[in-house]
Amino acid sequence: MDNTINTAVNYVNTNKTKFLSELNELIRIPSISTDLSHKQDMDKAADWLKSKLNTLGFTANVMQTALHPIVFGEYIISSTLPTILIYGHYDVQPADPLDQWQSDPFLGDVRDGCIYGRGASDMKGQILASMFALESLLDKSTIPFNIKYILEGEEEIGSPSLRTFLCNYSKELASDVVLNPDTGMVNKHQPTITYGLRGLAYFELHVYGPDHDLHSGLFGGVIHNPAQVLCQLISEMHDPQGRITLPEFYKNVRLITVEDKLDINKIALDDDLIKQQTGVPALWGEEGYSAAERIGARPTLDINGMLSGFTGAGSKTIIPSSAMAKISMRLVPDQIPSEIHKSLIKYMQEKAPSSVRWEIKMLSGGPASLSNRNLPATKAMTKAMKAVWGIEPIFKREGGSVPVTADMQEILDIDSVLIGFGLPDDNIHAPNEKLDLETWYKGIETLIHFFCYMNDFYSGGA
Amino acid sequence: MDNTINTAVNYVNTNKTKFLSELNELIRIPSISTDLSHKQDMDKAADWLKSKLNTLGFTANVMQTALHPIVFGEYIISSTLPTILIYGHYDVQPADPLDQWQSDPFLGDVRDGCIYGRGASDMKGQILASMFALESLLDKSTIPFNIKYILEGEEEIGSPSLRTFLCNYSKELASDVVLNPDTGMVNKHQPTITYGLRGLAYFELHVYGPDHDLHSGLFGGVIHNPAQVLCQLISEMHDPQGRITLPEFYKNVRLITVEDKLDINKIALDDDLIKQQTGVPALWGEEGYSAAERIGARPTLDINGMLSGFTGAGSKTIIPSSAMAKISMRLVPDQIPSEIHKSLIKYMQEKAPSSVRWEIKMLSGGPASLSNRNLPATKAMTKAMKAVWGIEPIFKREGGSVPVTADMQEILDIDSVLIGFGLPDDNIHAPNEKLDLETWYKGIETLIHFFCYMNDFYSGGA
Repeated sequence: MDNTINTAVNYVNTNKTKFLSELNELIRIPSISTDLSHKQDMDKAADWLKSKLNTLGFTANVMQTALHPIVFGEYIISSTLPTILIYGHYDVQPADPLDQWQSDPFLGDVRDGCIYGRGASDMKGQILASMFALESLLDKSTIPFNIKYILEGEEEIGSPSLRTFLCNYSKELASDVVLNPDTGMVNKHQPTITYGLRGLAYFELHVYGPDHDLHSGLFGGVIHNPAQVLCQLISEMHDPQGRITLPEFYKNVRLITVEDKLDINKIALDDDLIKQQTGVPALWGEEGYSAAERIGARPTLDINGMLSGFTGAGSKTIIPSSAMAKISMRLVPDQIPSEIHKSLIKYMQEKAPSSVRWEIKMLSGGPASLSNRNLPATKAMTKAMKAVWGIEPIFKREGGSVPVTADMQEILDIDSVLIGFGLPDDNIHAPNEKLDLETWYKGIETLIHFFCYMNDFYSGGA
Repeated sequence: MDNTINTAVNYVNTNKTKFLSELNELIRIPSISTDLSHKQDMDKAADWLKSKLNTLGFTANVMQTALHPIVFGEYIISSTLPTILIYGHYDVQPADPLDQWQSDPFLGDVRDGCIYGRGASDMKGQILASMFALESLLDKSTIPFNIKYILEGEEEIGSPSLRTFLCNYSKELASDVVLNPDTGMVNKHQPTITYGLRGLAYFELHVYGPDHDLHSGLFGGVIHNPAQVLCQLISEMHDPQGRITLPEFYKNVRLITVEDKLDINKIALDDDLIKQQTGVPALWGEEGYSAAERIGARPTLDINGMLSGFTGAGSKTIIPSSAMAKISMRLVPDQIPSEIHKSLIKYMQEKAPSSVRWEIKMLSGGPASLSNRNLPATKAMTKAMKAVWGIEPIFKREGGSVPVTADMQEILDIDSVLIGFGLPDDNIHAPNEKLDLETWYKGIETLIHFFCYMNDFYSGGA
């Protein structure tokens, strides 16, 4: 096995330029799932991945859904061997605001040991790390297990087609474990396995006032300004202690156990480091919890966007006819997105003044998840990380949402190992997204080790 | 004099198509002062008006300022005669949202007895009404007074160049009274003279959080969301009674006298009619005052626009790096815009949390004004309105702002007569702005009467 690993690692070392060039090819396809003008790019990215799987020896298909296609690939050696299902998403966030990028977001730019581009870290680089690890294990007959890939194109918009797909193809997807490389490392030197993820409930809240914009001089004083009403409603969604005030919002929140608390706070989330990374003058959050607890194990509510009236240069003296906010909540076990939707509606029913009309649209929702930390695959990953990084991985509960983890548990009854080789300062979902190349190459090496160790643990060894 | 009036009114009746066609010409020039991409259109509109004044026999010049030119015209018979200075602005508000217009905003569309187009009512139609009245008084030697025009191109952006111009050309502008046709009628049957106008203080408030957009999962719980902070700050600008909470905001507000109260409430501002005109389910405003008092004699604060984060279709899970609101206050006597600016700064210093940075930009400011209701020109206008409409005009304190009125009082020591032939449902500053043509033609007739009566009152007659 050592010999296999060495050969594969040598292959990585002599093919770094090739890997980087292929990643660049994929970044150049602007697969923005939320923007339907990029529909063709979505198909192009799916086709690209199908071809890549084919060159690795996989049977692969681009399968249509109601929106963006899912790439499904299989490399089956024997039905009696264990099967690993690798999940990924090939869609990316929009790149705006474009003027804040230092290089074209869809033309990977290599500088300072990183590749910059939308999707480099989240998660085109992560998908390809697993494929390049398999490519490096040249003599594939040495892999003693089956591999499947499921690569969706709707993760950044809440995976609306995925659950139906999982239900319809549960037999084809049947596996022993999911490898999901859509999380990251806590820092460049600390390999990380994520076992807890927050859920998400995403809404658009519209407040409607007059049926057209009004002159603020002629009507100011008798019309309830819908932007002001929206602000009032938003401002009261938190109390002075930073707690969320929606009715029964905390009802199903699982309390943090003493053991959880110890684990969560092992990750030194240094307040000064967060301030430095983000440029804020001071942190903020729910009273009574540490920063790591607030991100990892407590629900939060954020305004993701807000629009009303005249926002161009200069002044326009109107009372706008409406105001809109995008509002999303990060959920923890055992909060239920549909209950959160009801809670927001109830809040509006109680709080919205009769001087306006309002509407809530739910854009997406997925529950939080906690994974079993004692899976054989988790043990194989722990060993692989230690072999490459020299230290044990840290186990983390993360603030982000990977709803597919809960869906895989619920629909397919498969637990996930969540890892990734992105870093906290990768600017994912923001301008100047990047991927640190040294970490990425070590990630490919780690996955080579992982694939080689898998059988030890699934055959009852180590 | 009756013969002169009859001849002139006959001229109106035979030239309605010509007048409408000339108004359409002027509407077709998109003179949007706030948008510098329309700089050439501003010059074009100024030139158009200069030419029109020339054809009426005026000496006229397009005079440059730091931004948009001012058209100055003179028709001087004798320095011993009284002089009337007619004010107007040829700039218009932006036309957006464009998709809500039923016809091109810059291609006047005549339907249902109205002409639809940006600036038709506010105030290209009003400027031309005075010019067409003069055109109709064919034998101009019968006009026994001097006329001057001052037509600016920056009213919709707060007239930044006007005060300097008034100071520099105070001698050339010297007159006995200003006729300012930039206000309107309370309804189609009630001629109206406005004697009170609110002032304006317009600001942009920026709240800055992280130095770039952050992933709301990875950072939600430790970063104070700047959109949430902006909402909190805006929501606390009014107390539950609808009063404005900025420090010392009401300090200089002149109390409404019993006489004012009677006058103001003569205008039956029917709540149901306002609801019907605007489409709101209920009115709102400062407790303890009628709708007419709240619009005419009490200061107000409105959010004119708001922008933060991701506002496109779909969802993007970010904590935005900043949030912006356009906030303006309508002022009453004797509030001072620069004091209101200080009050807003003080409010922010007291209220803004240390977790964000903020900035206030003042975009424009002008005080409120009250005009003398016993001017000779006001008497001439009252007689003219009664002659054409059959009833006495109503005297009104209006919610809008015409800062030039206060500037003319302060810098040139000239009081204004404020009238106009627009209607409350003209959609000024909004999509589908229109001008009611029957009212407009009667307005031209009224101004013919006014010009003919002027001398009676200035020579001590009537």
